[in-house]
Amino acid sequence: MSATLTAWAPDGVPEVRAGDDLAALLLGVVGALEPGDVVVVSSKVVSKAEGRTVVADDREQAITDETVRVVATRRQRGGGLTRIVENRLGVVGAAAGVDASNVEPGTVLLLPVDPDASARALREPLSAAAGGPVGVVVSDTLGRPWRTGQTDVAIGAAGLDVVDDLRGRPDGSGRTMDVTVVAVADEIAALADLVKGKAEHRPVAVVRGLGRHVVDGDGPGARALVRPSEDDMFRQGSAEAYADGYRDGYAEGSKEQSGDPDDGVPGGAW
Amino acid sequence: MSATLTAWAPDGVPEVRAGDDLAALLLGVVGALEPGDVVVVSSKVVSKAEGRTVVADDREQAITDETVRVVATRRQRGGGLTRIVENRLGVVGAAAGVDASNVEPGTVLLLPVDPDASARALREPLSAAAGGPVGVVVSDTLGRPWRTGQTDVAIGAAGLDVVDDLRGRPDGSGRTMDVTVVAVADEIAALADLVKGKAEHRPVAVVRGLGRHVVDGDGPGARALVRPSEDDMFRQGSAEAYADGYRDGYAEGSKEQSGDPDDGVPGGAW
Repeated sequence: MSATLTAWAPDGVPEVRAGDDLAALLLGVVGALEPGDVVVVSSKVVSKAEGRTVVADDREQAITDETVRVVATRRQRGGGLTRIVENRLGVVGAAAGVDASNVEPGTVLLLPVDPDASARALREPLSAAAGGPVGVVVSDTLGRPWRTGQTDVAIGAAGLDVVDDLRGRPDGSGRTMDVTVVAVADEIAALADLVKGKAEHRPVAVVRGLGRHVVDGDGPGARALVRPSEDDMFRQGSAEAYADGYRDGYAEGSKEQSGDPDDGVPGGAW
Repeated sequence: MSATLTAWAPDGVPEVRAGDDLAALLLGVVGALEPGDVVVVSSKVVSKAEGRTVVADDREQAITDETVRVVATRRQRGGGLTRIVENRLGVVGAAAGVDASNVEPGTVLLLPVDPDASARALREPLSAAAGGPVGVVVSDTLGRPWRTGQTDVAIGAAGLDVVDDLRGRPDGSGRTMDVTVVAVADEIAALADLVKGKAEHRPVAVVRGLGRHVVDGDGPGARALVRPSEDDMFRQGSAEAYADGYRDGYAEGSKEQSGDPDDGVPGGAW
């Protein structure tokens, strides 16, 4: 006995254009779906189908437009600026998901307006074709602190328990487990990336064998995977937080010394 | 035509004890291996086989002992302290990988001394059994900034290109790709987590279909996935960096105001 899963990414997916019926297009290539399957689609083709291509000679301006909050910036060796930002979706990553690869020159591709809604829109026709509930993940590629390289994560999801909360469940030796909340949808996106690849025309993968995570309704969506920035110990880059602290400390130190009566904070508190 | 992978996690893995021949034990349960397979083993059973269980009434002291650098701390609602630290391996995570679940009460389990070496030691007998090169990943579970939940990552690897560096390769429309370095070994660990699960006695998974990432020799190891902290925009928690900045700024502001002649830094620079 063993737990088993299989995943495949079909070749021959046609170039997706604005207005295409993405569900019909996917159903034409993925083969026969079964209830419990999870279909993972690169956000890039979802964006293309939704007409999210914009003319932009200046990718930097497009990034600025998509940014809700700047988390950290760094000057690159070549002179460009790396911007880690929180985008409209709450997702923190480089360049706000603005994509300039695999698109027409002179254009950039923005993320879907609401990838959870995109996933929900796909879930229904795919489930109907499967004859039962199918999960859908819209994936994107993100870097991460502390580790090199990028992994794919879920920025949209439907029909899926995006996390598996094991807290309080007994472990193998009967004790309750510490703090494990498995980010299932992100792990599924990572899995799909391994079979889809990036350079090839394989923007969709099907994963079979994870039916235990597939739910009947729309489920919580990938938005549930976003940690609110106020709860985040890394809500701001180290250099940015240091600079803010320095500015505030400097102002306070100056006031202290000049005997500013306006000052209610005791000096030397740090 | 499609790209395909399969993965399975066998049941019936016996309880691993210090001194066990882990390769023999794994070969007894995984079925017939083929060249190009990747075998993913939870660090927990590697640690157990290597005798990394230590008696510790005080898990907190064990965490302190395993810590090289404190990255961020936060008081939990319950009163405990969450410590995000860099451990001996350069891996940043909560609790330095010190594990108190699935172990005997009164003990904790430390990470393998050198998980890359552990992976290399497994690679040879597993490859011999397969009749050709097999990749090995030693996985652990980590949280991450900005997103809820945890994913499995590779803390040890052998016989595997741990990253797939696509920089400079043409994308589907003939332009070179931006900045994609796929963290293959981490994605494989995530995939394996989905099929192994956590609560069950399934500490090993085999992934078939990723032979293009399997190499003949030991390869770079998972250490190559660690970003050096000096290159990291999030090397320190936001609150900690702010506090450091405040302290330095306060000292500088105080000096400025008191006309300290020792001061070469222009005031109000921030």
